[in-house]
Amino acid sequence: MRVAVDAMGGDVGPAAMVEGAVLAARASSDVQITLVGLTGQIEAELTRLSAGGNMEIHHASQVIEMNEPSKVALREKADSSITRAIHLLKDGKADAVVTAGHTGATVAASTILLRCLPGIRRPGLAVPFPAHNDRKCLVIDVGANIGCEPEDLLHYGEMASVFVETVDGIKSPSVGLMSVGSEAAKGNKLVKQTQELFENSDLNYKGNAEGGDVFGGKLDVLVCDGFVGNVMLKALEGLAVWVTEALRDELSRTWWLKLGAAACKPGFRELRSKLDTAGYGGAPLLGVKGNVIITHGASGPRAISYTIQRALDLAKAKVNERISAEVTQHASLDTEVEDA
Amino acid sequence: MRVAVDAMGGDVGPAAMVEGAVLAARASSDVQITLVGLTGQIEAELTRLSAGGNMEIHHASQVIEMNEPSKVALREKADSSITRAIHLLKDGKADAVVTAGHTGATVAASTILLRCLPGIRRPGLAVPFPAHNDRKCLVIDVGANIGCEPEDLLHYGEMASVFVETVDGIKSPSVGLMSVGSEAAKGNKLVKQTQELFENSDLNYKGNAEGGDVFGGKLDVLVCDGFVGNVMLKALEGLAVWVTEALRDELSRTWWLKLGAAACKPGFRELRSKLDTAGYGGAPLLGVKGNVIITHGASGPRAISYTIQRALDLAKAKVNERISAEVTQHASLDTEVEDA
Repeated sequence: MRVAVDAMGGDVGPAAMVEGAVLAARASSDVQITLVGLTGQIEAELTRLSAGGNMEIHHASQVIEMNEPSKVALREKADSSITRAIHLLKDGKADAVVTAGHTGATVAASTILLRCLPGIRRPGLAVPFPAHNDRKCLVIDVGANIGCEPEDLLHYGEMASVFVETVDGIKSPSVGLMSVGSEAAKGNKLVKQTQELFENSDLNYKGNAEGGDVFGGKLDVLVCDGFVGNVMLKALEGLAVWVTEALRDELSRTWWLKLGAAACKPGFRELRSKLDTAGYGGAPLLGVKGNVIITHGASGPRAISYTIQRALDLAKAKVNERISAEVTQHASLDTEVEDA
Repeated sequence: MRVAVDAMGGDVGPAAMVEGAVLAARASSDVQITLVGLTGQIEAELTRLSAGGNMEIHHASQVIEMNEPSKVALREKADSSITRAIHLLKDGKADAVVTAGHTGATVAASTILLRCLPGIRRPGLAVPFPAHNDRKCLVIDVGANIGCEPEDLLHYGEMASVFVETVDGIKSPSVGLMSVGSEAAKGNKLVKQTQELFENSDLNYKGNAEGGDVFGGKLDVLVCDGFVGNVMLKALEGLAVWVTEALRDELSRTWWLKLGAAACKPGFRELRSKLDTAGYGGAPLLGVKGNVIITHGASGPRAISYTIQRALDLAKAKVNERISAEVTQHASLDTEVEDA
């Protein structure tokens, strides 16, 4: 299996990406990795790591920066590492793509170049969160599709269920529909239009859910509109940053607190790792013709390596073939693809 | 000034509510509190606290439980403490109402009994969050209005600005419109329809915001549709609970961690108080003809007391009169009031 890794993505660029790829190559004998990006920088990293024997490099002369608008970046940077990596997938020269780069550009490039699976109108980006009882909850969509239709939400539930069942090995995953209360009468127009589609589907549908159910440990999949999922995801990240900084401030006020904090350090590290572990494996972009996984820009080498393993699992399990077989086909579906 | 306190609300019922009212009455000589609920239970609490000389009791024979659907509760419990308290406001026998009870029932009872201020179609519930640089961000709406129109969002921005300026004393508060990116082109249909209204308003409008801006410390007011705000609020509460429990687990694994945790306790307490402090003062329901503040069901006596003080400030500052003078009047506005 061949995984194309966008070597230029992520907050620290090639250093973390190349090291993650090297770790993944050492962990699996059946992965062939192609590093996509600026050849000089990639080679320098491989030299630093005394590695690279089994790595290919695919040159891309441009890098999409995290703060660039997706559309402009894609138009003006046709030779970016993200676009080149997706082209490898499209041309059958890779079985999966991993990037820690620009989410919007990756979604747009994947949608335009790979196109959606038959019957799917828009792809959905699925992010795993840690939950009670050491479970995980996969929330889809967190921002690939800002104008969801009821059929999109049904497809998100179906695609995420296939993913969780195939890649995480969870039989008949439980699926909730994000709303403002568990009663069926609660919800906005989109939720009310969608409920019946879920009820008539083959999913293990548990009805309406609420924001708190992300962490409740009772749902394997939580489906929401991309606008709602994106606001929620970023607010949760914001709270995590705020709490971390506020705690650091509080625990440095006296020498006694500093001492306590030093003693607690292994515990804090474990908690952070639990938060990160959920994110390991990254966010699959479900619904496009190809295996694309986007991981957090702040990912370190270990997370990158794990994400590459997951991309491999995704490709081996032929998740997209299963999705194509299982999604409900709607004759009325508007299959026009716009820029996501 | 007279504040009607729903003595039956909250997770622990009269114990916290009555004690909070007693604290508030001791702190302010100019507050006259009416405790609304089951007379026997309220009297028992007052006896326990050796207090009550300056308290009135207004009997209400029914209690709306937290898990009851709002509509059913209001229809079947006309003599509930929430409904009775709102009636006192409507009849001019109270200047403000404070409840830690059922949010949906309070919003619905307020909307139906008090009606909206002129020009306002639906009320919005505004919740303060802690932010960087010891600031706060007031997010409106967190679920009073599930089907927001662009005019509703504009009114939320205007009402919250008046509130923050009048009650918190922040001059020309900065206002953001919740979206999925700071660029104007980012957003769903509702956001795009709303941007121009904000740009043409007298608000200190800062453009699109993202979920993370709740905690960023740069915005005083963040406006969103009630569906989005509700999902976000509950997800944030869910994360806070998950982190607290996961941290407790981690810090009890060895005697060394337990020791560290014990030393850190004052720091953890301060952090919790920072999180709570933002919530002290509760969530004002803006847009109805009357001062209604809803506080968290888990509030203790100190938070209740503080909320009563805020209700007093709200009434004294004549926030509703200022709102009526400042909200943009839209001729096209549909003023029909439905059950929120």
